[in-house]
Amino acid sequence: MSLLFKNLRVHQVFGANTDVGKTILTSALVRASAAKKNQVFYLKPVSTGPLQDADDEHVKRYAGPHRALVNAHCLYRFDEPRKEGARNVVVPTDDAFITSVASYIRKCASDPVTERSHMYVETAGGVHSPTLSGTTQLDSYRPLFLPTILVGDSRLGGISSTISAYESLSLRGYIVDSVLLFQDEYYRNWEYLEPYFAERGVKVSTVDPPPPREADPGRNFIVTEEYYNKITSEHNTGGLLNVIELLDERHEGRIKELHSMPQRTLNTVWWPFVQHGLIKHEGDPSSPSAASSVSLLESQFDGSASWWTQTLGHAHPALTLAAARAAGRYGHVMYPQATYAPALRLAERLVHEGPGKGWASRAFISDNGSTGMEIALKMALRVASKKFGFAPQEQKKLGVLGLKGSYHGDTIGAMDACEEGVYSCEWHEAKGYWFEPPSIGIKNGRAFIEVPSAIAPERVEGQPLSWIYNVSARLGTSLATAYRKHIDMALRKWRIMVPLFTGLWRLGLRSAAPLLGAYPDVSVYAKILTGGMAPLAVTLASDDVFRAFEGTSKTEALLHGHSYTAYAIGCEIANETLDQLEGLARGDSWKAAQVAWKAERGEKEMEKETVVDGDRAVWSLWSPQFVDALSKLGIIDQVMSLGTVLAFKVTDNDAGALFRFASPFFVL
Amino acid sequence: MSLLFKNLRVHQVFGANTDVGKTILTSALVRASAAKKNQVFYLKPVSTGPLQDADDEHVKRYAGPHRALVNAHCLYRFDEPRKEGARNVVVPTDDAFITSVASYIRKCASDPVTERSHMYVETAGGVHSPTLSGTTQLDSYRPLFLPTILVGDSRLGGISSTISAYESLSLRGYIVDSVLLFQDEYYRNWEYLEPYFAERGVKVSTVDPPPPREADPGRNFIVTEEYYNKITSEHNTGGLLNVIELLDERHEGRIKELHSMPQRTLNTVWWPFVQHGLIKHEGDPSSPSAASSVSLLESQFDGSASWWTQTLGHAHPALTLAAARAAGRYGHVMYPQATYAPALRLAERLVHEGPGKGWASRAFISDNGSTGMEIALKMALRVASKKFGFAPQEQKKLGVLGLKGSYHGDTIGAMDACEEGVYSCEWHEAKGYWFEPPSIGIKNGRAFIEVPSAIAPERVEGQPLSWIYNVSARLGTSLATAYRKHIDMALRKWRIMVPLFTGLWRLGLRSAAPLLGAYPDVSVYAKILTGGMAPLAVTLASDDVFRAFEGTSKTEALLHGHSYTAYAIGCEIANETLDQLEGLARGDSWKAAQVAWKAERGEKEMEKETVVDGDRAVWSLWSPQFVDALSKLGIIDQVMSLGTVLAFKVTDNDAGALFRFASPFFVL
Repeated sequence: MSLLFKNLRVHQVFGANTDVGKTILTSALVRASAAKKNQVFYLKPVSTGPLQDADDEHVKRYAGPHRALVNAHCLYRFDEPRKEGARNVVVPTDDAFITSVASYIRKCASDPVTERSHMYVETAGGVHSPTLSGTTQLDSYRPLFLPTILVGDSRLGGISSTISAYESLSLRGYIVDSVLLFQDEYYRNWEYLEPYFAERGVKVSTVDPPPPREADPGRNFIVTEEYYNKITSEHNTGGLLNVIELLDERHEGRIKELHSMPQRTLNTVWWPFVQHGLIKHEGDPSSPSAASSVSLLESQFDGSASWWTQTLGHAHPALTLAAARAAGRYGHVMYPQATYAPALRLAERLVHEGPGKGWASRAFISDNGSTGMEIALKMALRVASKKFGFAPQEQKKLGVLGLKGSYHGDTIGAMDACEEGVYSCEWHEAKGYWFEPPSIGIKNGRAFIEVPSAIAPERVEGQPLSWIYNVSARLGTSLATAYRKHIDMALRKWRIMVPLFTGLWRLGLRSAAPLLGAYPDVSVYAKILTGGMAPLAVTLASDDVFRAFEGTSKTEALLHGHSYTAYAIGCEIANETLDQLEGLARGDSWKAAQVAWKAERGEKEMEKETVVDGDRAVWSLWSPQFVDALSKLGIIDQVMSLGTVLAFKVTDNDAGALFRFASPFFVL
Repeated sequence: MSLLFKNLRVHQVFGANTDVGKTILTSALVRASAAKKNQVFYLKPVSTGPLQDADDEHVKRYAGPHRALVNAHCLYRFDEPRKEGARNVVVPTDDAFITSVASYIRKCASDPVTERSHMYVETAGGVHSPTLSGTTQLDSYRPLFLPTILVGDSRLGGISSTISAYESLSLRGYIVDSVLLFQDEYYRNWEYLEPYFAERGVKVSTVDPPPPREADPGRNFIVTEEYYNKITSEHNTGGLLNVIELLDERHEGRIKELHSMPQRTLNTVWWPFVQHGLIKHEGDPSSPSAASSVSLLESQFDGSASWWTQTLGHAHPALTLAAARAAGRYGHVMYPQATYAPALRLAERLVHEGPGKGWASRAFISDNGSTGMEIALKMALRVASKKFGFAPQEQKKLGVLGLKGSYHGDTIGAMDACEEGVYSCEWHEAKGYWFEPPSIGIKNGRAFIEVPSAIAPERVEGQPLSWIYNVSARLGTSLATAYRKHIDMALRKWRIMVPLFTGLWRLGLRSAAPLLGAYPDVSVYAKILTGGMAPLAVTLASDDVFRAFEGTSKTEALLHGHSYTAYAIGCEIANETLDQLEGLARGDSWKAAQVAWKAERGEKEMEKETVVDGDRAVWSLWSPQFVDALSKLGIIDQVMSLGTVLAFKVTDNDAGALFRFASPFFVL
């Protein structure tokens, strides 16, 4: 829910450490903003300790001659937690907390007194100091992605803590507009930090350090007031007014950039899958709102889970850190005939514990699903050519058996494994034969299976959904017989087929193979494998397939590779994604869903093994009751759900997605 | 030069901040290691301040009853830098510094007193505290990649600084074996840090805090000695002996892992381009050394710049931070019909300021050079089909014009744009015609150009190298006439050709186009674009090419895409790589090389514009004198150098690389 308003410039203030002067510098920023005739909002979302010492009270006290423009607020006020008999209100959840902060900011944006308002949101402690819920500051405020001011540490050791805090902010995608710190003349940290940050495009500004605290409150007020007056005065060249100007510039630059991006994109970018001829106006790409009190940035619902690549939410911190760690440790690794931990670990877990368990012997890594499929094709072509001793001219005519409507990526070879369609290019040559697949679904609370009416007219119904996957029990139905006959006839032209299956937890299992009771010789995993962060694909192969490329000459090897094959960032992200997915698969929410679907099947006891073969593996994160109710709606033609997936077809609109297994079958 | 020895366990000690107890805890580790009968080396590479207060002196003083096993050493001893009249020795360069640290560690490894030795290398200040040369600790010690102990901060704010320091270490690829901190009973930071780090696979251990410093030196020695005695005693369950065991385990695990990796790799990994049948023994993948005093990890010379992907050295910190920043800010972005800063910025700079300047209008982003080429092929096929109104059957027969020996990636479509060869698969169909390219080189100090003798027998020589690129002046030579005739004859079968050029600074220019005085309609950039970190490719296209896909129906669009098209990590790394390359191109070392080659050409003045068109752009980072001398060696058949590239062919060994422009030409 990133927030950005045209007329309200909001900055969040993080500290490189506790006690670096965050409140003093934020107070001074508030006062300087007001001195420049801006309405100013100061928000300290959480305040701990006695009211008279609260930061918002301090800000009000020293708001200066333009105090009428200043509003200082706290959302959650707690007593000192360790104090005996402390009166503490309930600690909000992270979601409730961030929602209330966002609401407050939106309210301020819609409540203008002056043409331009400023807002400073002060965090507590250092960048990673825990909130009361236990999340650290950085992760807690991250949904708002507010532009950031980092208050550096001017003390001994402050160079290190300032740079580290900056790196923690960067690692979570915060953009630092300004580093502010006291001009301590003994340690002179700014002398090092100024050029260091300038190289990284961040301006460091220094401010005179505050006077020592006076014991007498009256006297303390006077010297403090004098100090604030000095550092926010126009005559102080090194003062804060320059910082205000910098922050204004950054804010205006950000809005200008945002407004210019749609047209600039239309001028220079060539999007995949998009007919640019249909996009004439700059409003056509997602365009910022016009109303000044509405945030220019708003959350969007990601209805396709980002092309089915998302698993753990966008920019999950564990995946971010994995990317950073692999980049920092390895950079590039020359993979052929060398080994390194992230690639080896990924290969081993996919082959031995993951979807390859029980059948695969090797993992071949490439860059994306389409290249992963090209590698699978090369494997299948070689195995078939060797097994049947085809001559080169016969080899060129080898085709794949697949399912109608299947699609394996856009490279020309992968497209040749599909029928001709709108996605094929001039060179396309459909190499193979594609069967009409059976369809499965739920309608009016009953599971059904059907094939195109030309093959068999009737739809077979059963109950519950797991009945569909009791494959052996269904083999005797007349529908199965009719479909078998259809396939037998088509196969007279062909030889052997080797199924390729996929899944990787999307359907609630490591692989779809146990669900169908058949194991492949080759399978390809991509998309979900890297949780949306970076492209990577793995083609798993059985030992027979691997041995077909073994020999004494390099020309017999699988001579396919990419410069970045098994690159460290991709492999490490994949490992972290699989760690997280396996954690989810063992976790309570998956177990509860499995119990619910087990009850639906009429089974009473929960087995220890959460993922079992065949029909028992039929379960979904969507409840049986919800799926049942959906299937009974008039507007719904059919619904299907397995694992994380819910698909439905709308009666009046054929554009609704019909869920089907679109796995190709290779001729060998 | 990562160091790892079988019989010497080395750990580097970093601090989350200054004054967190690094020296106290390292002293205690030394004493505990000795108490367990290990020979112990303590190294404080840089010590500042008076000798009696030096950390190595402290370690010796409190080495405990097994002090005979302890050796404490300092490599560079400086007076307090800010002290008046300080006696400071010369500050070593980063390279000299790390070489001397590595030498000392190697010496200790080869000097065994006991079967197993331990070593602790203590850094100064926090993780990012500057060394005397100005580099921060983390970057300075990074070449050694020693396993790491992080001393956490037990004070107020210490949770944040400990986590941030850990993230800075991770971002540079350090592996943290242990987090150690004082068990401060008031702030109790360990209570938060223990589960936080456990989730990340790192064990947090706490140690009793030290007693307050006594004013009387004798008394201070007694209480300090008592303290060290207590925390290193076997009876102290929470003490340091457990930490020693953990570090030993980690060390042994590391070595076991390293030794098992070759065989495990042979069992599970399917490498690209490798004939597994030729690799029978586990020693065949790069295998650790057997001698215990030799490091199990050693630097390797990366002779191909990691398949020509490297530009700035492995795992450059700026690229690492770019990867982290993009991962943290964006995660995944659904690119079609949406825009976001890293992708837009990359498209704009390549089209308007980079290699597309003057001819390109659009950037189409994909995952690697091979997919980038497939997109280029689809563009060319569409343009040709539209321009000449080819029917679908004619479109399938369209071919490319290219150069013999060219190679554009391994996907089946990209391979079809090459002649049949060992890299082609069963489906391969060579679609096009490939010319013998002219060869250029330097022999005996003279530049030459030649074509295969069947086309024209003579080799034409000239001087200096820039003469080769004075294309217009050479058009009248008999060699040019003969080659033109050869091409004209071949072209009677074909229509128009559109050249594709590449370069992207590798040859010292943004693009090779100005060098040849011809501009392309389509060009593809990958490899160097992301500095070796992550795969990405950009296909640039002219406006005519882009308009060939414009229309009112989506089916006319370029329907090619990948789930991770224009993914944030890739685009941000590319932008950072280009920033760095442009900085190099403006920098002193490139300017000096350009001046040297200008002098070689007999030109006296240095022009303001560092990169100019045509023959003036002929320069290399290898000096003219070196290239000249190399070309005169008997063993060298020919040499060629441009920009960053030096290529040579060895007389007796045809396997040497002959540099040639291998750009395809498209039929339109």
